[in-house]
Amino acid sequence: MNPAEVTYLYVRELVDALAASGLRHVCLAPGSRSTPLAMVLADHPGVRLWTHVDERSCAFFALGMARGLGEPVAVVCTSGTAAANFYPAVIEARYARVPLVVLTADRPPELRDVGASQAIDQLGLYGPHVKWFADAALPEASGRMLRYARVLATRAVRTAAAEPAGPVHLNFPFREPLVPQAPQAAGRDGPAARSTGSLRPVEGRRAADPAVLDDIARWIAGSPRPLFVLGPQEDPRLAALTSGFAARVGAPLLADPLSQARWGRHELRAVVDSYDLFLRDEALADRLRPTAILRLGAAPVSKALLGYLERLLDVPQVVVDPGGGWRDPALSATQVWPVDPVALLEGLSRYVETPEGPGNQPRAGVLQLQGRRQEERRAWLERWLALHRAARQAARRLLSESEGLSEARAIAELVRLLPDGSTLYAGNSMPVRDLDGFAEAGPREIRALGNRGASGIDGVVSSALGVAAVSKGPVALAIGDLSFYHDLNGLLAARLHSLSLTVLLLHNDGGGIFSLLPQADHPQHFEQLFGTPTGLDFRPAVEMYGGRFTRVASWGEFQRAVRQGLEAGGLSVVEVRTERSANAAHHRRLWDQVVQEVRGAVGLS
Amino acid sequence: MNPAEVTYLYVRELVDALAASGLRHVCLAPGSRSTPLAMVLADHPGVRLWTHVDERSCAFFALGMARGLGEPVAVVCTSGTAAANFYPAVIEARYARVPLVVLTADRPPELRDVGASQAIDQLGLYGPHVKWFADAALPEASGRMLRYARVLATRAVRTAAAEPAGPVHLNFPFREPLVPQAPQAAGRDGPAARSTGSLRPVEGRRAADPAVLDDIARWIAGSPRPLFVLGPQEDPRLAALTSGFAARVGAPLLADPLSQARWGRHELRAVVDSYDLFLRDEALADRLRPTAILRLGAAPVSKALLGYLERLLDVPQVVVDPGGGWRDPALSATQVWPVDPVALLEGLSRYVETPEGPGNQPRAGVLQLQGRRQEERRAWLERWLALHRAARQAARRLLSESEGLSEARAIAELVRLLPDGSTLYAGNSMPVRDLDGFAEAGPREIRALGNRGASGIDGVVSSALGVAAVSKGPVALAIGDLSFYHDLNGLLAARLHSLSLTVLLLHNDGGGIFSLLPQADHPQHFEQLFGTPTGLDFRPAVEMYGGRFTRVASWGEFQRAVRQGLEAGGLSVVEVRTERSANAAHHRRLWDQVVQEVRGAVGLS
Repeated sequence: MNPAEVTYLYVRELVDALAASGLRHVCLAPGSRSTPLAMVLADHPGVRLWTHVDERSCAFFALGMARGLGEPVAVVCTSGTAAANFYPAVIEARYARVPLVVLTADRPPELRDVGASQAIDQLGLYGPHVKWFADAALPEASGRMLRYARVLATRAVRTAAAEPAGPVHLNFPFREPLVPQAPQAAGRDGPAARSTGSLRPVEGRRAADPAVLDDIARWIAGSPRPLFVLGPQEDPRLAALTSGFAARVGAPLLADPLSQARWGRHELRAVVDSYDLFLRDEALADRLRPTAILRLGAAPVSKALLGYLERLLDVPQVVVDPGGGWRDPALSATQVWPVDPVALLEGLSRYVETPEGPGNQPRAGVLQLQGRRQEERRAWLERWLALHRAARQAARRLLSESEGLSEARAIAELVRLLPDGSTLYAGNSMPVRDLDGFAEAGPREIRALGNRGASGIDGVVSSALGVAAVSKGPVALAIGDLSFYHDLNGLLAARLHSLSLTVLLLHNDGGGIFSLLPQADHPQHFEQLFGTPTGLDFRPAVEMYGGRFTRVASWGEFQRAVRQGLEAGGLSVVEVRTERSANAAHHRRLWDQVVQEVRGAVGLS
Repeated sequence: MNPAEVTYLYVRELVDALAASGLRHVCLAPGSRSTPLAMVLADHPGVRLWTHVDERSCAFFALGMARGLGEPVAVVCTSGTAAANFYPAVIEARYARVPLVVLTADRPPELRDVGASQAIDQLGLYGPHVKWFADAALPEASGRMLRYARVLATRAVRTAAAEPAGPVHLNFPFREPLVPQAPQAAGRDGPAARSTGSLRPVEGRRAADPAVLDDIARWIAGSPRPLFVLGPQEDPRLAALTSGFAARVGAPLLADPLSQARWGRHELRAVVDSYDLFLRDEALADRLRPTAILRLGAAPVSKALLGYLERLLDVPQVVVDPGGGWRDPALSATQVWPVDPVALLEGLSRYVETPEGPGNQPRAGVLQLQGRRQEERRAWLERWLALHRAARQAARRLLSESEGLSEARAIAELVRLLPDGSTLYAGNSMPVRDLDGFAEAGPREIRALGNRGASGIDGVVSSALGVAAVSKGPVALAIGDLSFYHDLNGLLAARLHSLSLTVLLLHNDGGGIFSLLPQADHPQHFEQLFGTPTGLDFRPAVEMYGGRFTRVASWGEFQRAVRQGLEAGGLSVVEVRTERSANAAHHRRLWDQVVQEVRGAVGLS
């Protein structure tokens, strides 16, 4: 067996085991050292390859894809700084808990640290930001080493997917020759994998002990005013379970815009989507004193909500974090439970149901509230919903009355225009906040996603395109101009892979959020350090990547352009130009007036 | 003192000490957590700020600047993935030995690992790729902690600059408030630094012991056929010393295109710039058997040269690497000397001079060769120069005869058009190789730079613009289309900071080097995995950034466009369109024919 045959035999085992473990998509950037991985992946019928050129965009694209599918996606690159360009997406994947399998090619040991071209220290390249790192052995063809290749691959996919999901990194040293000796040698007939027959891989869920579940149910039942908070998370089942359970027990559910609880065909009765507007006012917030708080998902986007939670230090607050994390930036949690939230809510739901099947043991009605407790709960939920309705109504009216184009309304309108089955990707830092405050919940299936792991403005275009690549319904992205510029390279994927994405580009020529922060009080350096206007007209760049670009001047044009984008397919950018200080003033006016109207509605002066 | 005053007092000490240590330029991207750093830096009269939006481009811009100046440059960003975007440039700086001071803002300890927005684990974020990392203390205003801030800053700048130069990383946790309470509080009157009077910071150089130097001189003197190799390095003094010494002792100097020895007003008599063309041929290489090899600088670009060195395993080969590295990818060195090459060459030069000053002890003429040894050396050098002249002449004629536009000739012509005092930045992977093979040495001051630390195709546009920002003479960049696309965002700096750069864009729609590699024999996946055409017409993007774009169709147009770019200033892109497989065929033809002609010239069949 010649050296190339050994390499390809080993890599075929690896790739075959990746595919056997359920990996279906691989994003890769061109390179020489990674040739064995690239060629074998390209030949494998179970894997689809997505070519990119900029590794940073490539990895964010994979992240979006993994998020869209809820399954691991791999990224592949050659040795050197190529791999370092994956870093921002790897970190986002780590904190957002997105399964990513990073496969980097490397020089063999004898070419490391001796000044060879494109040779850098790739051991532990992503530090603590990957769940698992392995520097693979050089290819060998013994039975033991082929099993080793399969183990590496299987373990990588399983580890990436295991709770909490996240990135893993395998580093592969390869020696030349990097290409097969004969063209057909890259073929697909490696030794068969050992099979466990029909056994599927087992993934345990951390479920609470039945006795503990009883305690939890009693805690919720016994608390006069329970409050649920669902932060960013991507499982629609959890959203439906939580909102259904909240409605049944009369607990308001504060649903983050990225919680999947705001939009969908599930029970929406207890869903409050306007808390960011009225919890800003401490007098209003003071009327809403819960006696127990159950928090699920990641930390919510809303600063007003986080501030509210931080003021409720005398209230038991439980954060459910199955990943062994401690997602409580307010440091207000009294307990963190490392249990699976779906299992928890399924368990709790059984306390309010009386299942009919013979095998189901109905729980002893702990949470089937009656009498005074039921009344109390009804009043508690209604107290929230009254503020909620007043806030939503005020915001709706104020937005429709505001003259000219505005960022807040653009996002509200975009959500209104999204058809059933859509996905909305919300950029940081303002779009996701405007989505939080101004987009209305409703009974349409809309998946709302964002990069809230590290909340960077980088890689957002690629993340949205990665979702678009694996979505059946239309995908829209709401993004500011700095974030759009940051990942302009990401648009190449739309061209190379004929993807459809409608981009709402909120162009205020710079960092709009800073006009709402204390930095705005320091005009001396404001534009240089924070505003950072680029003066860019993105039309030429969008057109270069084969996209349609429409700058709209009215809401009528806006609606036409968005609808056309969503229906026609392809890449379509709808630009709304705004002015940063006017945008800040508009937000302040909206927030003030909504609070005034809500105060009026509930009889506060 | 309020908390903001404490923060600003501490940061003012830090920034003042950075400036006092000689730091003059800071590149930064907007962010909130980094506000204290940004505002104090903006206020300091000794520091110039360069604003960017994409941190990846920002850091490469700083790298180019530091390379252009030969002094540390700082980069500043906010917390989160912003800092991860610095990674590729940090790694390039590490291996290219460029002094970079990375200052990242961070959340304070209580906001780490609790799901806070833009909070990631920044401790050791760049792993072993920085020379020094410190997680700074939270700001305090005690005398001791203000001294600590000064120490951190001073040490960071000194460590970055110390041999081997490289990146250092300081991480700064900040608590809110991040802006000064009153606008003037960001002012510049911190407590005075303690001064050492007129004492400048001392930087030791690793000089060889005089007795050892004697040994070295004797070794060179006693060797019938010494050969010098100068790899990529940026010190013109070393280039002049080495080429002068080589000529004096009759040793050929194989000068890498990035060695600074090919172009300049120094002694060029022993400089061989065409070895990449004729060492490809083993029969020719076999005629050139040295008896001692002294290698300076980083590993040379030329694969032909590396292969030649690897075949000379019976010849003593000494690599001079003052940074404690081992830059010998051929693994052919018999010794690596960790001494300063300038000190070494200065020392050796004294063996061939008879200085006239009274304080200078003329060395005992060890290297003042005479008689037979002198004749031997003359013949040895001439043997190289004969091949060199034949190769250069053949290449020159073949290039001028070749029909239509070609990449090899475009780079040769570009170098010919560069005026005295220019800088040329050469992109990876083909441009620097074409520069190696086809651009002719000469007595003009041209600085030739490239990112050869990790030899990535990323960040090259920004690196060149960073040099342009601090260069007196014109700066040109030769770059392929994939590399240009990879750092298209870098062009924003040209617009924001009104920089002048002439770009030779070699657009063959994909990765041209792969057509010259064995991957090209595998047509099945070639375009998808290696060629990776983007189909982009870059004109709109260049114009979006305020640049002029000229696609040339003839050598006359090429010359006019390049001249205009160099003279008119601003950003100017001159595009030469080529075809990848034709380019590969052209290179093969050139290499073959040059070898044939050189063989003919020296009487080899």
